[in-house]
Amino acid sequence: MEEEEEEGRLVKWGPTAWKILTNVREQSPLIQCITNFVSMDLMANTLLAAGASPAMIHTIEEIPDFTPHINGLCINIGTLSSTWLPSMKSAASLANQLNKPWVLDPVAVSASDFRLKSCLELLNLKPTVIRGNASEILALSSASKGSDKGVDSSHRSTDAVEAAKSLAKSSGAVVAVSGAVDVITDGQRVVGAHNGVAMMQRITATGCAVTALVAAFVAADPLHAFEATASALSIFGVAGEIGNDSAKGPASLRMHLIDSLHGLDKVAILSRVNITNLS
Amino acid sequence: MEEEEEEGRLVKWGPTAWKILTNVREQSPLIQCITNFVSMDLMANTLLAAGASPAMIHTIEEIPDFTPHINGLCINIGTLSSTWLPSMKSAASLANQLNKPWVLDPVAVSASDFRLKSCLELLNLKPTVIRGNASEILALSSASKGSDKGVDSSHRSTDAVEAAKSLAKSSGAVVAVSGAVDVITDGQRVVGAHNGVAMMQRITATGCAVTALVAAFVAADPLHAFEATASALSIFGVAGEIGNDSAKGPASLRMHLIDSLHGLDKVAILSRVNITNLS
Amino acid sequence: MEEEEEEGRLVKWGPTAWKILTNVREQSPLIQCITNFVSMDLMANTLLAAGASPAMIHTIEEIPDFTPHINGLCINIGTLSSTWLPSMKSAASLANQLNKPWVLDPVAVSASDFRLKSCLELLNLKPTVIRGNASEILALSSASKGSDKGVDSSHRSTDAVEAAKSLAKSSGAVVAVSGAVDVITDGQRVVGAHNGVAMMQRITATGCAVTALVAAFVAADPLHAFEATASALSIFGVAGEIGNDSAKGPASLRMHLIDSLHGLDKVAILSRVNITNLS
Repeated sequence: MEEEEEEGRLVKWGPTAWKILTNVREQSPLIQCITNFVSMDLMANTLLAAGASPAMIHTIEEIPDFTPHINGLCINIGTLSSTWLPSMKSAASLANQLNKPWVLDPVAVSASDFRLKSCLELLNLKPTVIRGNASEILALSSASKGSDKGVDSSHRSTDAVEAAKSLAKSSGAVVAVSGAVDVITDGQRVVGAHNGVAMMQRITATGCAVTALVAAFVAADPLHAFEATASALSIFGVAGEIGNDSAKGPASLRMHLIDSLHGLDKVAILSRVNITNLS
Repeated sequence: MEEEEEEGRLVKWGPTAWKILTNVREQSPLIQCITNFVSMDLMANTLLAAGASPAMIHTIEEIPDFTPHINGLCINIGTLSSTWLPSMKSAASLANQLNKPWVLDPVAVSASDFRLKSCLELLNLKPTVIRGNASEILALSSASKGSDKGVDSSHRSTDAVEAAKSLAKSSGAVVAVSGAVDVITDGQRVVGAHNGVAMMQRITATGCAVTALVAAFVAADPLHAFEATASALSIFGVAGEIGNDSAKGPASLRMHLIDSLHGLDKVAILSRVNITNLS
Repeated sequence: MEEEEEEGRLVKWGPTAWKILTNVREQSPLIQCITNFVSMDLMANTLLAAGASPAMIHTIEEIPDFTPHINGLCINIGTLSSTWLPSMKSAASLANQLNKPWVLDPVAVSASDFRLKSCLELLNLKPTVIRGNASEILALSSASKGSDKGVDSSHRSTDAVEAAKSLAKSSGAVVAVSGAVDVITDGQRVVGAHNGVAMMQRITATGCAVTALVAAFVAADPLHAFEATASALSIFGVAGEIGNDSAKGPASLRMHLIDSLHGLDKVAILSRVNITNLS
């Protein structure tokens, strides 16, 4: 009860989430995605379902011409290569210069030294938001190589709260840790988004897709990156909850999730968004 | 009435579309696709659902061996890079030499100088058909950099009729402009395909997929590229209309569209294909 | 009858398949996939639906750090390039050294000299299993360039039995030939898996996906690669059969197949797995 009151003083999450989603639908922010090959289809369809405009443009020659026109940037290292890394750095650097929000998804950051080193270079280019699972945030926060098992999380998101706060403080980014409860912090405030269903983890690239959704939400409300990030994570979870009512397995959940995201209305958002203060 | 009569003299579109679809199903043309990463899954599944045989083979070393065996080629610059461009040019050039039809999709052509320049080089290799949205066709036709917002169209297809006719005349290609009405021209004749539903634009890569379908249709009737192009656009729209009856959002529409394309019968084609003369 | 008795002496396929699937679900083997761009989404979702853990990591810099942690490797040459080939060879070589199972999918091996030559180089790195369609296995077995039409099979799997046995003997691999009947051989034993439905061939990347499933099954029971391979092919077919009951076309079949794979229970496996002795 006390917690709810304390949270109530900071922000009313239902109306906040609805307002930012409405902004996304009205502004249709152009989101450049330099992302892994596995996620491109679901990421583009997630952005379209939310009302945003995706552009998967990754070639370094195009960044000086194209990146100035975007509203937000999503960088995901899932299928990182030495060919793509310079494009990621170039786009992030330009986004930074032009004061455009950009979001980093440090997929499987501890899978190799190459990946960790690349991620630290990207971190220096001041992402607005970092979203990963607990293992990724723990690894990135400690900046030391772990033994992350693939791209899935083997830690609980709540285990990573202190690491997330520390990373937020050192990087200046909002840090989001996906899990059964999504944890979002700007280094001071910490909230938990309690939406979503467990089977979403059995669909590839849902994590990547929600990172792109964060980019769209932050692009639509760049002065409130913390609120936009928490709202995006919660709303993606709400779409999953509603989709799950019609799902018979992970593939139908994927379809219904996107359909639900497209059709979300104010009543669903206000009744289902469940974000609470954890700090 | 007069327009319908005039159109009637040129071509009976329902039977024409049905005949070309039947040819695709019987011949199963082998379509080489050098396309963007986002579209590959939907493009391959669209070709398979229509009865064609997709082959996503893009490596320059393979083109001299493989391209002579294809029936049609689809080149799409959505995730263009300096690595892939030589393969696109090599395949287009060889298709041209061997008198095999090839189709160009100039995705987001005005997003960068690199993209526009690359597209003009491909245009010199004499595509059989060019399909884009209004902004892309306007930009390519004027061959001057625009301010295209991402890969989505911000112009109506009917705004681009004169640009499409001009591009068709200068390039020798059939030009198709996707939109609420799809416009198809060979520089003289202009028809509009009035099929499809608006929500198809909320599914990524539907434009890319229909370009591949055009390649399959033209491969199945290479002497009638104009009729094949209009038929492919109309039939994809018909599949979308039928799919939309069962859809609850963009992701289920995508599924039902492909199912419908696979199951289209003569009655559906003859009753729904809606192509009219616009010239 | 005699055949069934003989088969019965070797292995009881229903319980065997169920046991290996249970192992996959319990162990969640980490499967590194270096695969074509078209298949990545379906392959990752197939592995997740079966309970395995996919990792699409292909960069050569990462292999020395990452590949030692995997449980199995899947290499698929569908969109082969000279850039990716060294990674494939490096990962296969390391898997071999570390005694980890790896599976080769020689997609469209006869499409070009480059592809055939690359495949023979990979063959030298001693795959645990090779899975292809009849044309691919025939081409690879004869190691001479054929006239394979794209990536689809134009031969029946049963036409390739002798070629498969010969390839199994010369390579030391289990060889699987997909078709109306899937043929699996270790050079001595030959069995046929009679599951699946024809429409699965109208979905792109189902062949690629089942190869990854083979990798997961072999990773979960590395001492019984022959049994694991036959079980994976049969179970994927069973998922397709169950999925087909709800499908209205190839796209809904794809969805229901993955849902079914996720939900398979012992009763379905024991009643439907249909593997018989062909030797």
